[in-house]
Amino acid sequence: MTIQLYCFGESGNAYKAALTMQLAGVEWEPVFVDFFHGETRSPEYLALNPMGEVPVMVDGDVTLSQSGVIQDYISSKTGKFGGRSANERREVLRWVFWDNHKMSSQCGTVRFLMNFLPEEKRPAEVITWLQGRLRGAFKTLEAALGGKEWLVGDQPTIADFACCGYLYYPEPFGFDRADWPNIDAWLDRIAALPGWKHPYDLMPGSPADRAT
Amino acid sequence: MTIQLYCFGESGNAYKAALTMQLAGVEWEPVFVDFFHGETRSPEYLALNPMGEVPVMVDGDVTLSQSGVIQDYISSKTGKFGGRSANERREVLRWVFWDNHKMSSQCGTVRFLMNFLPEEKRPAEVITWLQGRLRGAFKTLEAALGGKEWLVGDQPTIADFACCGYLYYPEPFGFDRADWPNIDAWLDRIAALPGWKHPYDLMPGSPADRAT
Repeated sequence: MTIQLYCFGESGNAYKAALTMQLAGVEWEPVFVDFFHGETRSPEYLALNPMGEVPVMVDGDVTLSQSGVIQDYISSKTGKFGGRSANERREVLRWVFWDNHKMSSQCGTVRFLMNFLPEEKRPAEVITWLQGRLRGAFKTLEAALGGKEWLVGDQPTIADFACCGYLYYPEPFGFDRADWPNIDAWLDRIAALPGWKHPYDLMPGSPADRAT
Repeated sequence: MTIQLYCFGESGNAYKAALTMQLAGVEWEPVFVDFFHGETRSPEYLALNPMGEVPVMVDGDVTLSQSGVIQDYISSKTGKFGGRSANERREVLRWVFWDNHKMSSQCGTVRFLMNFLPEEKRPAEVITWLQGRLRGAFKTLEAALGGKEWLVGDQPTIADFACCGYLYYPEPFGFDRADWPNIDAWLDRIAALPGWKHPYDLMPGSPADRAT
């Protein structure tokens, strides 16, 4: 049965789930969510996901939200990208939590404030403050990738696919690959994996679509 | 072997791990981390946890950080509070991720900014903005607890012990139990579980200690 993923191109959280399915080679299809016209606040969407968030994955009678949970589900289902020992599996989960807690939540928010809000509504103090916190997260990630190809063990895992979630987007939000050489090389390694696609190619919807 | 938890009383993230161990009845002891004098930025602490975060759990040769991972580890080790089916286990993980992503990260931050920074350094715009995001999270939690005793299934799980992490603290940060009756009653239910303790009683360190 084809897995459905409720998503849209601009969502790095959806990208983490989509990329995990794509690289694990499962059959899946995107269901476009019109976030920018308020679809996630509609009664129909809230019936699907009371948390009102994207992504949502539907695999037969299993409906899940939270990208980390979907990644864990796909990894368990396929036996791929989950680490190769109990210790590696805990390390993988640790990085996925760290990403959700300290990195992506900030990346997604500051990118939204800087790019998808009308210019007069952008809260300057909040943006500066979030960017300061993000620099701390990038520093932790850069250090973790020193002398290593992947975050956990010697193979790619869902930890990598979580932490990279917002880092391929072209919109400015305070992340410049040139400033972080270990992160930069690691993003190239992920992008070289068979089947990899950029978020705007993997999922429907992008700023270009909305501009037309 | 006694499990060690590096923690301090003000950390709601540490409380989630401590409360899980406490209610699961494992042998554990706190190791006080002097966060307010910069201990988490020391080379010694960064050697223990390169993410520079509290809590860290040490159980023999297993060292873990991220409260969600520690909760999952304790739940697996003891067979308690993890949900009673594959479906419940995924729902539990989903709420733990949601908490880390959308609720506790904001609670902890805004509480820090409002209470533990010198008054002249408190960023007013950031505080107002974070409180707005928090109200959205409280609304989701309040709705989820409508007509239910616990977040997942009909027993307490680590999902409850994650989401309550910052909600027993007395310092003001934009959460008033009286505004959220379902959350209020659920906090009383958690507090009635055998062995429950308030964060300032369960872990060393509190604002009162620092004032003396």
